[in-house]
Amino acid sequence: MTRRLFAEWLGTLFLLATVIGSGIMAERLADGNTAIALLGNTIPTGAILVVLITIFGPISGAHFNPAVTLVFLIRKEIKARETVLFVIAQIIGGICGMFIAHLMFENPMIDPSTHARTGISQWISEFVATFGLVATILGTLKSRPDAVPMAVGLYITAAYWFTSSTSFANPAVTIARGFSDTFAGIDPAHVGMFIVMQIIGAVAATLTFGWLLRA
Amino acid sequence: MTRRLFAEWLGTLFLLATVIGSGIMAERLADGNTAIALLGNTIPTGAILVVLITIFGPISGAHFNPAVTLVFLIRKEIKARETVLFVIAQIIGGICGMFIAHLMFENPMIDPSTHARTGISQWISEFVATFGLVATILGTLKSRPDAVPMAVGLYITAAYWFTSSTSFANPAVTIARGFSDTFAGIDPAHVGMFIVMQIIGAVAATLTFGWLLRA
Amino acid sequence: MTRRLFAEWLGTLFLLATVIGSGIMAERLADGNTAIALLGNTIPTGAILVVLITIFGPISGAHFNPAVTLVFLIRKEIKARETVLFVIAQIIGGICGMFIAHLMFENPMIDPSTHARTGISQWISEFVATFGLVATILGTLKSRPDAVPMAVGLYITAAYWFTSSTSFANPAVTIARGFSDTFAGIDPAHVGMFIVMQIIGAVAATLTFGWLLRA
Amino acid sequence: MTRRLFAEWLGTLFLLATVIGSGIMAERLADGNTAIALLGNTIPTGAILVVLITIFGPISGAHFNPAVTLVFLIRKEIKARETVLFVIAQIIGGICGMFIAHLMFENPMIDPSTHARTGISQWISEFVATFGLVATILGTLKSRPDAVPMAVGLYITAAYWFTSSTSFANPAVTIARGFSDTFAGIDPAHVGMFIVMQIIGAVAATLTFGWLLRA
Repeated sequence: MTRRLFAEWLGTLFLLATVIGSGIMAERLADGNTAIALLGNTIPTGAILVVLITIFGPISGAHFNPAVTLVFLIRKEIKARETVLFVIAQIIGGICGMFIAHLMFENPMIDPSTHARTGISQWISEFVATFGLVATILGTLKSRPDAVPMAVGLYITAAYWFTSSTSFANPAVTIARGFSDTFAGIDPAHVGMFIVMQIIGAVAATLTFGWLLRA
Repeated sequence: MTRRLFAEWLGTLFLLATVIGSGIMAERLADGNTAIALLGNTIPTGAILVVLITIFGPISGAHFNPAVTLVFLIRKEIKARETVLFVIAQIIGGICGMFIAHLMFENPMIDPSTHARTGISQWISEFVATFGLVATILGTLKSRPDAVPMAVGLYITAAYWFTSSTSFANPAVTIARGFSDTFAGIDPAHVGMFIVMQIIGAVAATLTFGWLLRA
Repeated sequence: MTRRLFAEWLGTLFLLATVIGSGIMAERLADGNTAIALLGNTIPTGAILVVLITIFGPISGAHFNPAVTLVFLIRKEIKARETVLFVIAQIIGGICGMFIAHLMFENPMIDPSTHARTGISQWISEFVATFGLVATILGTLKSRPDAVPMAVGLYITAAYWFTSSTSFANPAVTIARGFSDTFAGIDPAHVGMFIVMQIIGAVAATLTFGWLLRA
Repeated sequence: MTRRLFAEWLGTLFLLATVIGSGIMAERLADGNTAIALLGNTIPTGAILVVLITIFGPISGAHFNPAVTLVFLIRKEIKARETVLFVIAQIIGGICGMFIAHLMFENPMIDPSTHARTGISQWISEFVATFGLVATILGTLKSRPDAVPMAVGLYITAAYWFTSSTSFANPAVTIARGFSDTFAGIDPAHVGMFIVMQIIGAVAATLTFGWLLRA
């Protein structure tokens, strides 16, 4: 269990270091062209997800995401106690990853975001983004489990662009990004609704694909 | 059958949400540089195709495209009645995906495009684009069926750039994009000829590769 | 044999349609930023190579390149007569692909390039580019034959950027690009030396990897 | 042994030719937009790593990196004498690759960099970058050895962006880049601390993953 929690912690740490770090790097270099900055944020995020799920999948399942852990709880593939510990490891890992990104880029360690991300369009976006993420995981796990790392990396690559929220789709990621007043940040006041929509999207996808993939 | 139709509907929905949504996002951020906007439209589209074909392939075959369903009808691998139902599910799915993209980006729900896409060069482009798509599917299915999702994603990634039409290659996609006055839109008056050329391209590739791949 | 020649012809056709077509599209949209134009030329070229080698590999070996066919002649894996026919099919295919790209983008059909590509640096580049391409093919064929399509696509993606010639590495491609006064063009007067250096690079790699990979 | 050393030499040569060559190309074309230049440096580097590890993995293990060779020494999977020879081959290969990049782009052969890369943030970056690289190699080798080439290529793609140093993570690469006053260069006075941090990161990851992956 120690190793599984360590894997969730370290994986989420690297995920956030990448999301926030590449966001800082991309914005600094992009000379005001936000599409280029988003490319420089998207490509590293998609790439590191493939790597992290490949490495940590065999150890902990490589959730790095409380919404994903909740999916496996609903499917009775993880116990309630483990779920709580996983979520704690993910949230702490995300915050540590944010710290490390800030250290690497000489940003203040705690730096609450002022980046407004709110409104019905963005809430629908988070529902769609998380629904799609869970669909990707459950659909690929069923028929091509070895393809899960690539599928998740490519899904997030797409979702950064097809949602108006740039697809957080992960409560641990959302919390950590609340403390980062950088390209990837989100105003802490807007974190709550994002998490609510992520959970609803995850539950909806679990039920839908539970039916769709039934043998 | 219900699950297969649902898979075609939901897959085409996500495909269109990505094509139109990422087009809106890319154009908004690209600061007038259309090549950057097209990159921001291409990369998500290629990525989501890999994901959607991986997820839905084992359920419905993951056509998401009336021209592709027609190919399998010609090859007698799908029945006429199923073909009709598949095409209906795809067209409705495409329109729903367009709605969801518009919801996520606060665009009017129905918003007929004024983007002219017509002329001999673009018609040839749609013939070439669809010929190549069907060649990709039939060629890869024959020798490396597990590589179909990646091959289709990469093919469309290339075809967005090597055709002057940006490669619609899909009647359901073409219809849905007629209702979206955004980066990915097409004037509804120009939809018809695109679909005609797509069907001719699909039939030509079916015949060519039927001969080429004969055992 | 007819099918193999047809595969070489059609594959080289699609390769050139992509190289030249995406070059035209990228340059038109890139608003004068050549790095973005080269990205829009690189990504489609790398992607289509993966697709074409996957489709046509099992039929003809998917050379699409007289220098590659020469490698297999030296290794006695193809006969002299076949080699000649393959090279003819590749050259005609390349020219047809150039025609189709010009048709799709309303360019004059024959349009000799004025793009100077000459000098020692570029000649060394073509040697290095072709040496690396043949190394990629022979090295990957030996240990991971199923990975050849991906390896070649990724190699060319890199080589477009790490050589000052943007890595033609293929006599059939070089000839066809001589007739295209577009982003991907090359002054016909400079075609000869490129082909000479490509052949030297291919032979050098064949000898080097013949020794290196000897069981 | 000759072949293994030759593989390390040639692989590191191509790696550096790509890192430095694509950096020169990208900066020349990017019209002052550094984010685009970094994209044009990142994509080729990630791509060539997949190719080189696929080709040379079966011959020498495809280290191309003294820090990686040190990891296998600590794990007792390579002997001390081989380690020394490997490191020499890598350093010479890196310098030869730098020469070839300079030849291809008409740069002076030896051209000490004036690009300052120093300070605590960048040192932490090199620790994180190398820790992650070794984690990627050891984690993937354990459960999915065939996925190592792709994982390393994607890891470096991400790490170029999420670290403020752009992730050298390799002493042989760092030394060679000291002699190149181009986009990828590093002031020779700053090479030492980068190498120190790379070694510390590699050792820390070896110990961490030795525990984490213990059966």
